[in-house]
Amino acid sequence: MSDLALGPGREFDRIRGILKRLGPAARDIGDDCAIIPEGGGRLVVSVDLSIEDVHFRREWLSLEEIGWRAAAASLSDLAAEGAEPVGLLASVGLPRQAGDEELLELMTGIGAAARSVGGAVLGGDLSASRCWLVDIAVIGRAEHPVTRAGAAPGDGVWVTGTLGVARAALQVWEGGGTPLQEAREAFARPAPRIAAGRALARAGARAMIDLSDGLAGDAGHLAAASGVSLEIDLGLLPLAPSVTSAAAAAGIPAAEFAALGGEDYELLAALPPAFAEEARARFTRETGVALTRIGTAVAGSGTRLLLNGQPRRLSGYDHFA
Amino acid sequence: MSDLALGPGREFDRIRGILKRLGPAARDIGDDCAIIPEGGGRLVVSVDLSIEDVHFRREWLSLEEIGWRAAAASLSDLAAEGAEPVGLLASVGLPRQAGDEELLELMTGIGAAARSVGGAVLGGDLSASRCWLVDIAVIGRAEHPVTRAGAAPGDGVWVTGTLGVARAALQVWEGGGTPLQEAREAFARPAPRIAAGRALARAGARAMIDLSDGLAGDAGHLAAASGVSLEIDLGLLPLAPSVTSAAAAAGIPAAEFAALGGEDYELLAALPPAFAEEARARFTRETGVALTRIGTAVAGSGTRLLLNGQPRRLSGYDHFA
Repeated sequence: MSDLALGPGREFDRIRGILKRLGPAARDIGDDCAIIPEGGGRLVVSVDLSIEDVHFRREWLSLEEIGWRAAAASLSDLAAEGAEPVGLLASVGLPRQAGDEELLELMTGIGAAARSVGGAVLGGDLSASRCWLVDIAVIGRAEHPVTRAGAAPGDGVWVTGTLGVARAALQVWEGGGTPLQEAREAFARPAPRIAAGRALARAGARAMIDLSDGLAGDAGHLAAASGVSLEIDLGLLPLAPSVTSAAAAAGIPAAEFAALGGEDYELLAALPPAFAEEARARFTRETGVALTRIGTAVAGSGTRLLLNGQPRRLSGYDHFA
Repeated sequence: MSDLALGPGREFDRIRGILKRLGPAARDIGDDCAIIPEGGGRLVVSVDLSIEDVHFRREWLSLEEIGWRAAAASLSDLAAEGAEPVGLLASVGLPRQAGDEELLELMTGIGAAARSVGGAVLGGDLSASRCWLVDIAVIGRAEHPVTRAGAAPGDGVWVTGTLGVARAALQVWEGGGTPLQEAREAFARPAPRIAAGRALARAGARAMIDLSDGLAGDAGHLAAASGVSLEIDLGLLPLAPSVTSAAAAAGIPAAEFAALGGEDYELLAALPPAFAEEARARFTRETGVALTRIGTAVAGSGTRLLLNGQPRRLSGYDHFA
């Protein structure tokens, strides 16, 4: 496992180090979900940890939104597998002085996110804690899970929805301001791309990953797992209108701003060359979600990000950078 | 779900409140594990959160022990279901200043606990955090999971191992001392009772629960879920030698001390009346684990704890009491 196929970054160096140390005590690691064969099908399981003042601030979001966002972040891993949610278990740490109503608000958001994609809350754990924290374990089913590892040279590289708008909210908050409603909602209440993930799986997706750490970093994981290089034209990224002004405020091109934001929880998929405009239109008709081709898988390794034909070096979000 | 069958306590009032609020967004809650039917069998899933200065202190345990104990606490839920572990996912929060080697020590303990019962680490999540925290999601298989809900009047009430010794360590640490090696090991490195849980399931256990919050409280959950009363003779509790002196230091009877300690992670099982000495001897021969009859399920509700024939009122550990 020590040759785990992840992209570069300190967080991923740490994961590589863990797998080297664990040896046979770790198995099948390196995808969005753990895949458990069971009775002819596959159960897929993932966990995602959200911690106050690391992933969110109380001043930014209601507890109901904090719950929704934590659950949606974990459900996003099921989406990337092309899986159908069964349910989730919620481990919640809450300050000793927190009231019953606050806990209920948080759980309401978690439950609403689960219900929005046909799942339910199946269990959990409660503990006193110094700060609010939520760890969501999601469980889904997929007959043929789509891993990060199947992209082949010639495949198109596609992305769902639009990128960067949730990051725009984050930037405004971090600067002490109040984000526009559109951006705020995108950050507070990301829609788990379950239906989109399943439609992409049906359409023959060979590899998928959710953009939880941003396109620049996550594309590197898909490339590494698939043993290909991804050539991505940043000029093709689907940007929401408010991204332009946020990027201008940050002093960087809008496409780079969007490529570095993981908060949208969109999906990146490698689709076979035959997947083209007609299939794209059908996907959007069925799911209501935009789908944009942004590049191509080629022989090689790593990612090649181009802006106006010039290569750009960008890194994804790294918790320990 | 609002009539969820749990015993009394503020933590369980909160869980009842959550389920009432969630309505149909929560399903099948109230056992040690969520049970997911899949292809003729059953997958069982549980989560258990361990937080620095709530569940452990860095001065007491090495990071390797913190990892082991967190994983064992979650695996204990699989044991109570009579399940066989598949693996676990570990969400870890670590302080920004923590070094790579510290994280590796923690993960080594988690991996060793998983391996000790035939499981493996299948995934996880890493995040920066104000303090160390570990949330372990465990996944197991059980053809016929043993829930908390099957005990019938006349069943014998049995407990594995010995009780109270890990609590003895905790008491010494909290008083500023250094516990005896036996007690320290019991707290730092509890053995997940997987083999015992599976043997009890094979022996016809009708209901089981792990004693993570102590016999006094956990027996109440089993009684409530089964719709019976449990009559338990505290004088029959299997006590380790060091419990006597720890209880004397606390100024309470040794049996009460042991009934309030959940840190041993032993199992409580309701077994049919036909399960008797011969079956007990076979269980211990096969598993190497002691098994002691401490009471009987009778018609009624709640628990009735007796010491020298006198009823005693004791409450289990409550995170929010």
